[in-house]
Amino acid sequence: MRIAQIAPLIEAVPPKLYGGTERVVYALVEELVRRGHDVTLFATADSQTSARLVPMAEGGLRLLGTKDPIALHVAMLEEVYAQADEFDIIHSHVDYLTFPFARGVTTPTVTTLHGRLDLPETRRVLSRFTDQRLISISWSQRAPVADLPLRWVGTVYNGVCLERFPFRPEPDNPPYLAFVGRISPEKRPDWAIEVARRVGLPLKIGAKIDPADRDWAEEHFLPLLGTPGVEYLGEVDDRQKAELLGGALALLFPIDWPEPFGLVLIESMACGTPVIAFPGGAVEEVVLDGVTGLVCRSRTLDEMVQAVHRIEQLDRAACRRHVEQHFSSEAMTDAYEAIYQQVLLEQATPLVVSADGYLTSATIGDVRRLPPVGSEIGRTATSGFTTPAPLER
Amino acid sequence: MRIAQIAPLIEAVPPKLYGGTERVVYALVEELVRRGHDVTLFATADSQTSARLVPMAEGGLRLLGTKDPIALHVAMLEEVYAQADEFDIIHSHVDYLTFPFARGVTTPTVTTLHGRLDLPETRRVLSRFTDQRLISISWSQRAPVADLPLRWVGTVYNGVCLERFPFRPEPDNPPYLAFVGRISPEKRPDWAIEVARRVGLPLKIGAKIDPADRDWAEEHFLPLLGTPGVEYLGEVDDRQKAELLGGALALLFPIDWPEPFGLVLIESMACGTPVIAFPGGAVEEVVLDGVTGLVCRSRTLDEMVQAVHRIEQLDRAACRRHVEQHFSSEAMTDAYEAIYQQVLLEQATPLVVSADGYLTSATIGDVRRLPPVGSEIGRTATSGFTTPAPLER
Repeated sequence: MRIAQIAPLIEAVPPKLYGGTERVVYALVEELVRRGHDVTLFATADSQTSARLVPMAEGGLRLLGTKDPIALHVAMLEEVYAQADEFDIIHSHVDYLTFPFARGVTTPTVTTLHGRLDLPETRRVLSRFTDQRLISISWSQRAPVADLPLRWVGTVYNGVCLERFPFRPEPDNPPYLAFVGRISPEKRPDWAIEVARRVGLPLKIGAKIDPADRDWAEEHFLPLLGTPGVEYLGEVDDRQKAELLGGALALLFPIDWPEPFGLVLIESMACGTPVIAFPGGAVEEVVLDGVTGLVCRSRTLDEMVQAVHRIEQLDRAACRRHVEQHFSSEAMTDAYEAIYQQVLLEQATPLVVSADGYLTSATIGDVRRLPPVGSEIGRTATSGFTTPAPLER
Repeated sequence: MRIAQIAPLIEAVPPKLYGGTERVVYALVEELVRRGHDVTLFATADSQTSARLVPMAEGGLRLLGTKDPIALHVAMLEEVYAQADEFDIIHSHVDYLTFPFARGVTTPTVTTLHGRLDLPETRRVLSRFTDQRLISISWSQRAPVADLPLRWVGTVYNGVCLERFPFRPEPDNPPYLAFVGRISPEKRPDWAIEVARRVGLPLKIGAKIDPADRDWAEEHFLPLLGTPGVEYLGEVDDRQKAELLGGALALLFPIDWPEPFGLVLIESMACGTPVIAFPGGAVEEVVLDGVTGLVCRSRTLDEMVQAVHRIEQLDRAACRRHVEQHFSSEAMTDAYEAIYQQVLLEQATPLVVSADGYLTSATIGDVRRLPPVGSEIGRTATSGFTTPAPLER
């Protein structure tokens, strides 16, 4: 299959330091190439890939400090779609900017939405593009827009390159807790610090501070760095992150927002490190409560403190196994491949919607039934893993 | 003529406080309606207009603090172009986001570029859309992209609503200097403060601080606010701005970037207040050096100090007259109307490019010659005003 992958230009593929979407694109592209697909990756010039790389920016725009990153994304999309005929399918990871371009060509596009969908402006822009094929990264991600007639073609959980996060059967001794991600009011590193202080364990923090979050960090985070046992490592690269996560007794994840997926959850579990999390967004789809982590449903620091005391009862090998089965590059690529194939099948034949809402593929002398749009391709690909019922159903 | 005007959603039309593009759109729309055109304005819900308003956001997104303003602009463009058939022409003020939408319809679009064109990412995105009809707001604005084969259809200088900036024959007594705009390294309020300090005159500052400029402001501007005679009024509305500018002995404009136009220059001159400026960008197109202001070509604070001593020799009535003749809403609307008409004429007949680069309008049995694309419609509309030769020619 001739596949175009459009990565964000904010970070390199994979990111040099912090970065979620570009890391997922990296894992997907490597696995698609390994399976023999003809993949063209539109990404920053300093990206590493086994695919054909079309460089669309000198480097990751966040680290370069580019003033108008949107301009380069629009230029990239123009370039991708000018050569749309070269591809069987175009897979975009740059959100709604894709949509006006996708409409202008016959090559089908699927767009994975990697971000939160609960902002009113996101709702508004999606409602204007109900013709666009969308993929969510968790079922809960869709909840805020569940009432819109969007064209979902699947949910595909993010996957991690397992070899980048080696399994560690035992945590470090003396023990410590870990916090990894962004210093922001969504991720609440201040709550993680308070939990660590109460249980009397060191906390190692590997996280970036975005300009947008600087005020919050100055008021709520930086003043806490004098707390005994708290070590702030700044932004970490993959190697540092695997070391930080792998050695930890547990990852603290006291989020205060609807987490679209939570990539660090699967990175931590891949290392064998269980997760202690507040519920929210995809947390309960990704973490097996009581097996690969503890979800503190009361959303209190007290419950999180208690969870730290119980965390050693969990089996680190079960954490690794959970990721191997459901959140590997291979599992993710299985799901995306299935979606690409379904889209191409639909594309090849005229479609009519039958009375029960199923899409019927009608050709002369042959009426076949296809799975409905929004089918559970993403979930069935991770067979055997029971997630909670999708919130919007 | 049925005209769609697409305003940015960052500020209301006109802006409640700071804001350039939306102020220009306001002036243009009011004058087009007065001339009998059927104008539809896509803008924020709290905009004031004589046109049919289609509300595209609750209010100005900067003051609302909207997290993802681009989403609402993309949603707006989708809505505009879904009804493209209702318009004879679409005039966009939201830059390159327009381009992919404009390609999908037969109604012609013209896009006024209101910002700087010297960033590498701007260059890159424009170079991918050489089919799009562009309008510059000064000749110098085009200089950084003069080598690109862009489809310029004119230059139209910004216009000001004269009644909002009443003429003041005499400055206040005791005298003071004014600085109006953004607190930023492009506008250099710190240099204005130093000039005022050296000449021993008070300086009144009406300016916003963008989040992106906060670091700079904290280091270079806020520490100077203790300077005797310096009064910082924060961000000002139109009434405050007219008062601040009209009472001043002169406007200080010690810019350190290629100013695309410099709206405050014409607002100041409209009040009768001459300008003391460093050269750069459009300054020498907008200010008549020695008549409506003094351009300090050495770019030194010493020359600016000397200019303050000489500024009373200039005739305040000449400043007003200069704006009435060349930078009124009416002059601007003359130029835009001429461009709309030319575009519709071209649209009505198939075009071929002749050997000398002129566009030839060829219909059966009739070959007429039209002015070349990039003709000087904007300039000839402000007849009698001699500007420097365009830099790119």
